[in-house]
Amino acid sequence: MRYPETKPPVFTLTAGPVDAYPEVLRALGTTVLYDYDPAFQAFFEDLTLKAQEALGCDLPPLILQGEPVLALEAAAASLIAKEDVVLNLASGVYGKGFGYWAARYARKVEEIEVPYDTAIDPEQVRDFLSSHPEVRIVCVCNHDTPSGTLNDIDAIGAVVAEAGALLIVDAVSSWGGMPTSPDSSQAGIYVTGPNKCLGCPPALSLVAVSEAAWAKIEANPDAPFASMLSFTDWKNAWKKTEPFPFTPSVAELNGLSAALDRYLDEGPEQVWARHALTARICREGIKAMGLELWAASEDIASPTATAVKMPTGIDAGVVLGEARARYGVSMSAGRAETLGKLIRIGHMGPTAQPGYALLAVGAMGGALKALGADVDVAAGLAAAQATWDAEIDA
Amino acid sequence: MRYPETKPPVFTLTAGPVDAYPEVLRALGTTVLYDYDPAFQAFFEDLTLKAQEALGCDLPPLILQGEPVLALEAAAASLIAKEDVVLNLASGVYGKGFGYWAARYARKVEEIEVPYDTAIDPEQVRDFLSSHPEVRIVCVCNHDTPSGTLNDIDAIGAVVAEAGALLIVDAVSSWGGMPTSPDSSQAGIYVTGPNKCLGCPPALSLVAVSEAAWAKIEANPDAPFASMLSFTDWKNAWKKTEPFPFTPSVAELNGLSAALDRYLDEGPEQVWARHALTARICREGIKAMGLELWAASEDIASPTATAVKMPTGIDAGVVLGEARARYGVSMSAGRAETLGKLIRIGHMGPTAQPGYALLAVGAMGGALKALGADVDVAAGLAAAQATWDAEIDA
Amino acid sequence: MRYPETKPPVFTLTAGPVDAYPEVLRALGTTVLYDYDPAFQAFFEDLTLKAQEALGCDLPPLILQGEPVLALEAAAASLIAKEDVVLNLASGVYGKGFGYWAARYARKVEEIEVPYDTAIDPEQVRDFLSSHPEVRIVCVCNHDTPSGTLNDIDAIGAVVAEAGALLIVDAVSSWGGMPTSPDSSQAGIYVTGPNKCLGCPPALSLVAVSEAAWAKIEANPDAPFASMLSFTDWKNAWKKTEPFPFTPSVAELNGLSAALDRYLDEGPEQVWARHALTARICREGIKAMGLELWAASEDIASPTATAVKMPTGIDAGVVLGEARARYGVSMSAGRAETLGKLIRIGHMGPTAQPGYALLAVGAMGGALKALGADVDVAAGLAAAQATWDAEIDA
Amino acid sequence: MRYPETKPPVFTLTAGPVDAYPEVLRALGTTVLYDYDPAFQAFFEDLTLKAQEALGCDLPPLILQGEPVLALEAAAASLIAKEDVVLNLASGVYGKGFGYWAARYARKVEEIEVPYDTAIDPEQVRDFLSSHPEVRIVCVCNHDTPSGTLNDIDAIGAVVAEAGALLIVDAVSSWGGMPTSPDSSQAGIYVTGPNKCLGCPPALSLVAVSEAAWAKIEANPDAPFASMLSFTDWKNAWKKTEPFPFTPSVAELNGLSAALDRYLDEGPEQVWARHALTARICREGIKAMGLELWAASEDIASPTATAVKMPTGIDAGVVLGEARARYGVSMSAGRAETLGKLIRIGHMGPTAQPGYALLAVGAMGGALKALGADVDVAAGLAAAQATWDAEIDA
Repeated sequence: MRYPETKPPVFTLTAGPVDAYPEVLRALGTTVLYDYDPAFQAFFEDLTLKAQEALGCDLPPLILQGEPVLALEAAAASLIAKEDVVLNLASGVYGKGFGYWAARYARKVEEIEVPYDTAIDPEQVRDFLSSHPEVRIVCVCNHDTPSGTLNDIDAIGAVVAEAGALLIVDAVSSWGGMPTSPDSSQAGIYVTGPNKCLGCPPALSLVAVSEAAWAKIEANPDAPFASMLSFTDWKNAWKKTEPFPFTPSVAELNGLSAALDRYLDEGPEQVWARHALTARICREGIKAMGLELWAASEDIASPTATAVKMPTGIDAGVVLGEARARYGVSMSAGRAETLGKLIRIGHMGPTAQPGYALLAVGAMGGALKALGADVDVAAGLAAAQATWDAEIDA
Repeated sequence: MRYPETKPPVFTLTAGPVDAYPEVLRALGTTVLYDYDPAFQAFFEDLTLKAQEALGCDLPPLILQGEPVLALEAAAASLIAKEDVVLNLASGVYGKGFGYWAARYARKVEEIEVPYDTAIDPEQVRDFLSSHPEVRIVCVCNHDTPSGTLNDIDAIGAVVAEAGALLIVDAVSSWGGMPTSPDSSQAGIYVTGPNKCLGCPPALSLVAVSEAAWAKIEANPDAPFASMLSFTDWKNAWKKTEPFPFTPSVAELNGLSAALDRYLDEGPEQVWARHALTARICREGIKAMGLELWAASEDIASPTATAVKMPTGIDAGVVLGEARARYGVSMSAGRAETLGKLIRIGHMGPTAQPGYALLAVGAMGGALKALGADVDVAAGLAAAQATWDAEIDA
Repeated sequence: MRYPETKPPVFTLTAGPVDAYPEVLRALGTTVLYDYDPAFQAFFEDLTLKAQEALGCDLPPLILQGEPVLALEAAAASLIAKEDVVLNLASGVYGKGFGYWAARYARKVEEIEVPYDTAIDPEQVRDFLSSHPEVRIVCVCNHDTPSGTLNDIDAIGAVVAEAGALLIVDAVSSWGGMPTSPDSSQAGIYVTGPNKCLGCPPALSLVAVSEAAWAKIEANPDAPFASMLSFTDWKNAWKKTEPFPFTPSVAELNGLSAALDRYLDEGPEQVWARHALTARICREGIKAMGLELWAASEDIASPTATAVKMPTGIDAGVVLGEARARYGVSMSAGRAETLGKLIRIGHMGPTAQPGYALLAVGAMGGALKALGADVDVAAGLAAAQATWDAEIDA
Repeated sequence: MRYPETKPPVFTLTAGPVDAYPEVLRALGTTVLYDYDPAFQAFFEDLTLKAQEALGCDLPPLILQGEPVLALEAAAASLIAKEDVVLNLASGVYGKGFGYWAARYARKVEEIEVPYDTAIDPEQVRDFLSSHPEVRIVCVCNHDTPSGTLNDIDAIGAVVAEAGALLIVDAVSSWGGMPTSPDSSQAGIYVTGPNKCLGCPPALSLVAVSEAAWAKIEANPDAPFASMLSFTDWKNAWKKTEPFPFTPSVAELNGLSAALDRYLDEGPEQVWARHALTARICREGIKAMGLELWAASEDIASPTATAVKMPTGIDAGVVLGEARARYGVSMSAGRAETLGKLIRIGHMGPTAQPGYALLAVGAMGGALKALGADVDVAAGLAAAQATWDAEIDA
């Protein structure tokens, strides 16, 4: 029995989109209200304040009407003025990619780039900023998803704050799945989205903007307005007495509301622990099979996705197809520089459950073995289960 | 008994967002697939071709991941090059507004503006284009929603085609509710969305782009790429073998698929007839109460929304609040120049049913009467019902 | 334009099933739990206690796994012992029908029957019980739905209590839509269901059983056990530590939970007021058209359904078909003795909204007029709207 | 991390109720129609014919408004007349239990009972019927769920047919998950339900009744009518022109329709293969851990549930609680005679997927080990995965 490509897989264990929580799926079908109906305007205000509680930011966050690439592009367009020198930190495809957006708006973009299986060293940032006092803005990706690796944005944030610069953080696939926040990273702009660890479908962004960042945006004559790329248009839209710049995505907001309720009800610490445990089990299973993690050091492996290096001579795309056909398990390919070289198993939202790690280990191992790789699947499953048990009994 | 503002209204009879069809609400809750899963990629290709069938356009349309203001801004950004002279046709707030986007990108924007209760005269466009052969692009709004008035885009399209210029059509709140299409209007870019007459929540755009428009976009060095505002990024994304520029809004696409199935299954002509009948009943009821339509001539009153002029001295906002509190009926205010002066009753998708016209007539009449206006509500209801009956028996 | 029979109607304004509240429809799709999962057992206990709060009964009510005809048949089978003499009160088809179930189990069934457009006189019951002290059980229907008429079960209950007999009440289509309860009627067994005024789909029953009734059931050697018709099997099943006699209808229970939350949140008095107002508006509209209510006296017309007498020579079935075809409005026929003679407009749960009364008046009047009846539809609509307005301004 | 009892488990791998297919969950939320609306009546007729296609029976099946215990009780009440001698075949708790219902209605119930980990021998039935020509009705359970064991109903059916008796089959938890049918078993009454292998919530029954069985029911003066226990009431209700005996469970029927579409679309053979494979993987994993199947012979182990014998001295209830707390996996206890002695892992509908077998093996093994049993969990996982791989590569 092989699973056909024409039917949905049985298990979607990708690094996003992941399946949404059942509460969220049901909430998406809520009666659609007119955006200027007073009940909707009050809902939107309440929702923004609930998102603020979850994010732990000082000001009501922006809820933008597009998945987080919108927010990232808009962050660059809004914050970076023509005269600015920007330092872009690139430890992966997404971090590198942000530099291209920065370059559209900045006078100059400096870059610290490290191999895509490693992380940015905060000390190197400190040194760079010391010798480049003209840098006004630093950009960093918290979890560079195509590599499954983390940057220590709290440490980097401290360095940037010390230098008096503003930090733009891409926390899209980390926030909600691990302890990270606008506050702890001292971010000027902190971009995340409900479509990863919060367990919503992709369609919205959440953005925390600090007072200082707002001041800079408002002083930027080229910051977009009357545009999809505008932060400013949405600044006050959360207030029930204020108009919307355009029609918000009502159904997705209903889903977000259910997801935030769920997150706050389960308890962020508990949610993070669930993500961390799932990832740990997955990594132990992967290593025990004789495979290598992509991350050069396990310290920087994300709790929200496990990137597995493909054995020499084996193409990741073929492995993905085989895992799906054999086991009904859908996983994620790499992107750009990491494409073909690794496979990512997501641990996000509803799939951040140890049981799925076990399934993923079996599926990845089984597919590789079927393709001729030297993989000990049984050892992988045993290690995953044993890690789980050890954790339960701890 | 008055309906509180804190609870949703009983009837949302607005000019959008309207409530979605039940099939669409249920489809929004479909299991979320990974965008690169082969089942999703095949779904997206099928969906695009189904949208093409519904739109009747020559090329697969773009499905953009934001409500139609995204598509309109992106249309301006993509098509209008630095050297272009653009003719903007403004018969209402939305048509006027497009001119501001056009002005960001064009060398010069010319404008024909007419009072916001009238329509553009195609002959005037012909004359203008004859005397301004430098105009390369003409922009027009089919149904200028804040006025509830139609422009004859097929006649205008013929004139524009004759002049060898490209036409950008905003058909957001007309397409799907009346006979209008990219083909009949000879549009270069024809923007619509599933969130009006198709009965979906707001979150997506549908855009038909002609061969000629694509050629112009591809020749425009400033056309956005790697951007939310890009058309080009999405040109080939409909093919199941091609990547997505960023993650599409999976849940909304599931809803769109259900809406298109419903539209094609009911039959476009039947859908249009239902919209037209509802609007006619509504207008007869409104007039019989002693109220005036906003449209200077009923010929240009849209079948998808009825704009009603407020009697002198009465603020539309107060009437809207009163109608909602008394009857549980939510209707739409005007916008900008029309704000306060009119109220719009939507006839879109699931609310394009004569029964709702009857309710709206009663609610608007009753609210106005309660506020002291000289309105004969009973005559309005009688006329609405009689119009309905006459139509049934015709 | 006529609405085809092959497609659902636009408005279901029947006396049940009615459409469910949107919250209920969404709740039906909740993940199905194993009935012996501790989370489900706790849910069932909580749900029963919530139903008890809504019903205001002394003991936790039974939630039976079938629509209320199950509960009524089971009530007869459980309470009525071989030696019992039963007094059945018949003011309509449903009250009459209960007598047939009673006759299966009783030694003798006495009956007070009155014309089906009138109500039982409590004094007549008192007289009967005085002269028939052997009667142990009295049966009455609160709202005899096929007639749309009410019996005063509180007054009857007082008489029955005085006589020391037990009362079985069928409150299926009254409870939740008007002030009626097990307590106020001093009922031994009080049967209702979530599928009428509570706005759920049909599939479950709610039954309040008094201490005295339980004692009688437990003393009845022929009371069903290990049977769908058993009350006893379910007596303790509400406790999370007790087993279920068979698998409960998980999805329907999820829907019931949402409906009870909604009912308690809106507030029973507010819900009842909404039903009463809708019915009053409907009746005024009907009368103003020149039609007659079925009820001989308006005092006994139910707030949950309006039964309209058909003019001589006109068959109700034809009118129903015409109203559906012309206006997309589905209404209810009579049953048995009332079949063909009347049409019922339901005011239950989500359709207990004045706006729907207006639509129903128009649809019924319009259909009758189209069939040649002498009906003044405009007067009906005017009266309905005026009644609504008078109430708002009261 | 332990999973709390107060929250739903992560994986419901029980022997029913199981979670419903996503399509079914969404369909449950379809707009509720009036049962006498022509669109609903046509739907019910179509649904019955679709069920007939799936069941492969000669006559339109009954769709009864209660989970299959209703249909089983009603089958006994309808078919068995006062003068009948019945042979009940008991190889488990459910088969045994049916005898009690039979005894309510029959003159005499004979019984062949075998140990609850074995199956009925068709030859023994043949011998019994030869020596007891007075037996008119034979009752058998296809899959006696509390034991997870199968009886060969096709062989038994042939023997019964030969003897000219009528067979009542309980195929509740086998039909839809393996090749079994009314036709192949020559059943007079064949009871199943949508809430097991078809992936619906519990609330309905499906019953195939043969011509001969209808003749016997109609000749039975005590067969229930005007009762929840009646087959006769529903005989013609499937026709769109016929009335319903009482209100059908509209939402559940919408769910059933989606489930039948899914079943026929996936293809029954494919569905059965999926169940069989899942069960085989599960059994191999269980045995490799050092545990024993409950079934005395693996030949009679059901493809729809795997019953695992608990090691001496270990209570199944404690193991279930531990598996749920440690792994978030909910499994089923035994019932009555098998309670405490075994645990059942369901493979039904959406959970009939090999991946869930792997999880269940890990959860059962891990829980037992944590409770001190001598179980080799790693060997179990390895065997399960290897069995899966062997099957894929076959």
